[in-house]
Amino acid sequence: MSIITLTTDFGTKDHFIGAVKGAIYSQLPKAVVVDITHQITPFNIPETAYIIKNSYKSFPNGTTHIIGVDSELSETNKHIALELDNHYFVCPDNGLISMITKEIKPKRVVEINIHDRVESSFPVLDVFVQVACHISRGGKLAVIGKEVKTIKEITEVQPKISQDQNKITGAIIYIDNYGNVISNINKKLIQEIGKGRGFNITAGHYKFNTVFNKYNDIVADKKGDARQYDGSKLAIFNSAGNLEIAIYRSNLQTVGGASTLLGLEYRDNIIIEFK
Amino acid sequence: MSIITLTTDFGTKDHFIGAVKGAIYSQLPKAVVVDITHQITPFNIPETAYIIKNSYKSFPNGTTHIIGVDSELSETNKHIALELDNHYFVCPDNGLISMITKEIKPKRVVEINIHDRVESSFPVLDVFVQVACHISRGGKLAVIGKEVKTIKEITEVQPKISQDQNKITGAIIYIDNYGNVISNINKKLIQEIGKGRGFNITAGHYKFNTVFNKYNDIVADKKGDARQYDGSKLAIFNSAGNLEIAIYRSNLQTVGGASTLLGLEYRDNIIIEFK
Amino acid sequence: MSIITLTTDFGTKDHFIGAVKGAIYSQLPKAVVVDITHQITPFNIPETAYIIKNSYKSFPNGTTHIIGVDSELSETNKHIALELDNHYFVCPDNGLISMITKEIKPKRVVEINIHDRVESSFPVLDVFVQVACHISRGGKLAVIGKEVKTIKEITEVQPKISQDQNKITGAIIYIDNYGNVISNINKKLIQEIGKGRGFNITAGHYKFNTVFNKYNDIVADKKGDARQYDGSKLAIFNSAGNLEIAIYRSNLQTVGGASTLLGLEYRDNIIIEFK
Repeated sequence: MSIITLTTDFGTKDHFIGAVKGAIYSQLPKAVVVDITHQITPFNIPETAYIIKNSYKSFPNGTTHIIGVDSELSETNKHIALELDNHYFVCPDNGLISMITKEIKPKRVVEINIHDRVESSFPVLDVFVQVACHISRGGKLAVIGKEVKTIKEITEVQPKISQDQNKITGAIIYIDNYGNVISNINKKLIQEIGKGRGFNITAGHYKFNTVFNKYNDIVADKKGDARQYDGSKLAIFNSAGNLEIAIYRSNLQTVGGASTLLGLEYRDNIIIEFK
Repeated sequence: MSIITLTTDFGTKDHFIGAVKGAIYSQLPKAVVVDITHQITPFNIPETAYIIKNSYKSFPNGTTHIIGVDSELSETNKHIALELDNHYFVCPDNGLISMITKEIKPKRVVEINIHDRVESSFPVLDVFVQVACHISRGGKLAVIGKEVKTIKEITEVQPKISQDQNKITGAIIYIDNYGNVISNINKKLIQEIGKGRGFNITAGHYKFNTVFNKYNDIVADKKGDARQYDGSKLAIFNSAGNLEIAIYRSNLQTVGGASTLLGLEYRDNIIIEFK
Repeated sequence: MSIITLTTDFGTKDHFIGAVKGAIYSQLPKAVVVDITHQITPFNIPETAYIIKNSYKSFPNGTTHIIGVDSELSETNKHIALELDNHYFVCPDNGLISMITKEIKPKRVVEINIHDRVESSFPVLDVFVQVACHISRGGKLAVIGKEVKTIKEITEVQPKISQDQNKITGAIIYIDNYGNVISNINKKLIQEIGKGRGFNITAGHYKFNTVFNKYNDIVADKKGDARQYDGSKLAIFNSAGNLEIAIYRSNLQTVGGASTLLGLEYRDNIIIEFK
């Protein structure tokens, strides 16, 4: 069995995803094709980086991940395939993998050079599927590309630390399905820089000095009615370990989520000041 | 082969669903994972109850259904696993299964007690997947929880019958993809209470005295142009057997559906008066 | 292995798709069920025709495609099953397959006559699944219907050519996930009618005289910063071969796509005048 995952900004209305899946099954009838998401904001690299980082590890070793976001080939946007952490990635070299490679060094990276149809406006179908199927069949990366030593990085996804180590300036990199806003600051960084110090978090006009580990931690009386907390704001380390500003049991259809209620938008700063 | 279905309010943009599927395939490489929906309105229990009731039966006996809606563990929101009607369900004990258990008694219910990571803010990934894979491998419920005799019920999804048996007061529990509004009153109940009597249906400002069995029944001249009926309102027993108020071939992008056109909203009353 | 694809206007929130998949797995435990899309605009035939035409070919020969758009049975909307180009299609006879049959003659078309539950308001579940599973098991079309010689066509999807062969009048048949607008004029038609002549394209208030083969062709300096072109309008032959008016790297969440920015809507004319 070979698992191939798909992460794209194609949406689910167009024929693109159907065409890609058909092409995979045509080459590998026994493949298991799994959608991670097709709802990436078009061309948004940090969003892609966050989603792929937090989903790939759940899959078995040997899984191949096709990532099709801003993937049209150009002189400045090459196609690459990587072996990293016992997983394979086929994607454009536009920084979307750099949130992972910052922490885990790839074992091998190749620049894909099998582009026989140069004019393709649909490289995920015409190139990535072929590369992914090659890998899934146990093929070597060297066959489909030439090894490269560096890949593009995005700086946007890294928080900044003040020289005196008293302040972390992060940013909102993702707004999730519940309207919760997620920063690029994770628990590990706070522990490394904070070394046990207390801190204040500033997000827009709001301040927090406690970070919960699960949403229900906001509920003081564990046997009481939790609904009185509906709509309360809180800071939490989410399941990915990132600092998140959330509204307890937010309802986007009625009152809204943290993003709309607190006026926090993609790329806004989240600041931690240690005491 | 083991089928595991997923019904959540996670949406399809975030990494959650990808992570859950990866975790299932890591444990059960030959599993067939099927999305029922991830578009439940966040934390909406009646919606979940309606959707799971009307989809689970189509699956083969032995299917395990993971339901992740308002599933964070707390003193007042335990996790349960059920065997019922030859299907298995892994879900929070918040009433979402009670639309089924009202009609079919579960063979066995256990309160899950394998929570080794108590602080999890992602119990579907950390707990439900493990339980579902255990069940899919043929494992016993007794291994992952202790038997309980009662589960939470939601009253919201039950229509009320007047003492003189002349009136059923139901409510809108679901608005579907076409904008049609679906009540908690089903054909069987109308037959039981009505005993063949005629009736009037009141939905907001509108009255109906006929309930169709399919949408095209509104078309009088079967060989004529059905398009003249586009936009007409009608009452129908939908494929789930529920009384539904619909707009014939509604187009949400242009004229709208029953919900917007007739001003009928979630939780509004639908009343049947027998003659 | 048998692949069955699904293309519907059911959306992904309701229980419909889950119920259909469950029914397929109940009949064919080893089936591979693939979603093409469930986001067709309700009852929109040209959209369906465009999507199915551009995805079916990627799948292996022998794949069965269930298409559930405006599929309720009536005197004027029969159910059919077709063998065509080594693929099978199960769908209503409402023109949605005619964009393919215009180019490739079906080998066999039958009008389905297994409707034992005549009153079904959910024929995709009650009828199409049964037919598709029959075909996937290698069953003959003759068993589930009687052969017919003609099927309904939609004229809407065909561009008009002026008598003097100097002008093609097409229309927008699809707006994709990026807001790009796609016409019913393809590259082949322009070559046949144009015979190498230059041309001007008019789309609303905008004119184009170049059609690119990929989006990046708009970038003049291949090694420079492509981002200066973000938001530029262009005409392109898309991966389906259709003439498309696009915005280079459009962002629907901020500036918008070709549809909103250029005021081009579904059914608007796209005109090509040859010199």
